[in-house]
Amino acid sequence: MASLEFWYEFGSSYSYPAAMRIDEVAEDKGVEVTWRPFLLGPVLKAQGVTDSPFNLFPVKGRYMVRDLERVCDALGLPFLMPEPFPMNGLYAARLAILGSDQDWTPDFSRAVYLAEFGDGADIADPGTLKAILTGLGLDAEDCAAQIQEPELKDRLKAQTARAQELGIFGAPSFVVGDELFWGNDRLDPALDWALKAG
Amino acid sequence: MASLEFWYEFGSSYSYPAAMRIDEVAEDKGVEVTWRPFLLGPVLKAQGVTDSPFNLFPVKGRYMVRDLERVCDALGLPFLMPEPFPMNGLYAARLAILGSDQDWTPDFSRAVYLAEFGDGADIADPGTLKAILTGLGLDAEDCAAQIQEPELKDRLKAQTARAQELGIFGAPSFVVGDELFWGNDRLDPALDWALKAG
Repeated sequence: MASLEFWYEFGSSYSYPAAMRIDEVAEDKGVEVTWRPFLLGPVLKAQGVTDSPFNLFPVKGRYMVRDLERVCDALGLPFLMPEPFPMNGLYAARLAILGSDQDWTPDFSRAVYLAEFGDGADIADPGTLKAILTGLGLDAEDCAAQIQEPELKDRLKAQTARAQELGIFGAPSFVVGDELFWGNDRLDPALDWALKAG
Repeated sequence: MASLEFWYEFGSSYSYPAAMRIDEVAEDKGVEVTWRPFLLGPVLKAQGVTDSPFNLFPVKGRYMVRDLERVCDALGLPFLMPEPFPMNGLYAARLAILGSDQDWTPDFSRAVYLAEFGDGADIADPGTLKAILTGLGLDAEDCAAQIQEPELKDRLKAQTARAQELGIFGAPSFVVGDELFWGNDRLDPALDWALKAG
């Protein structure tokens, strides 16, 4: 079956609409998606970028807010600019790694994005994440304990290192074999590439 | 009639596919396009950006080349990365301003982009531009003389200042009323917006 890797960072604004629609669009086209949470901060830092480009260049940052309003509106999604931006997605990313073993990563990730960009919730707050986990019928205390394990922390570090090896420099990114696609607006071309390659 | 402004810079790589397809796509949708050449360099400089983001961030720059190969391939357009990049589009932009009075700006602009990104021609070279003008049946010597007039130079400066006022920070950009859209992949949403607004 044709397949594609979806690389995303919880602080990334354009990862939000991508996360909300990817499974549906991919299923329609018959492409299997693997969710790959990673941390964009260390990847950008290694490339000499010390903050979100939307903060570094305020004119671009203002545009981004308006563009996301339009993009989300077209998808029927609410959009609020998080404060501060970008939010720290470390705990959320560790939980998404944990969920990969138990198949709840996509549901969890969508719930985090919706809380963050739909409701303005603070996703760096463990309480926000616990409420989301509980809402998914999971044992939030147990999950919170598991993401403190060194082995799990190392898995997120390894996945972030892998993102860097793949030449990723932003989120969302889509990987099909050796081909990298960057940005929510490259989801459809990436899926088409997967079908052609698959 | 619904209308849209197409803001472009001759050194900009993603302005190339936008320029090559905009008139056809807009005509299909019934949107009138006004071509607005400007200089991106001074606009970026005022925002603290001193070089193309694709040069400032090499990982992103390498991606851009591959992405443009795919984008152009899907449109049936040749693509060669110009050397040096970005090319100096000052003379071409002045000529495009001149052509606005005589309705040859779109044909001229497409020919410049095709020479630059399709054939690797040096568009900073007056000889390249003269050949293009001659090919369009224009008096190349007369055009070369006219773009030395202070009044024409001022018109390009004014248009560049206007781009800055509009909040433009990259090319291509599309403007519909108060709405700004950035990037070749925003052409279709911008046209749809024009139809809704028009």
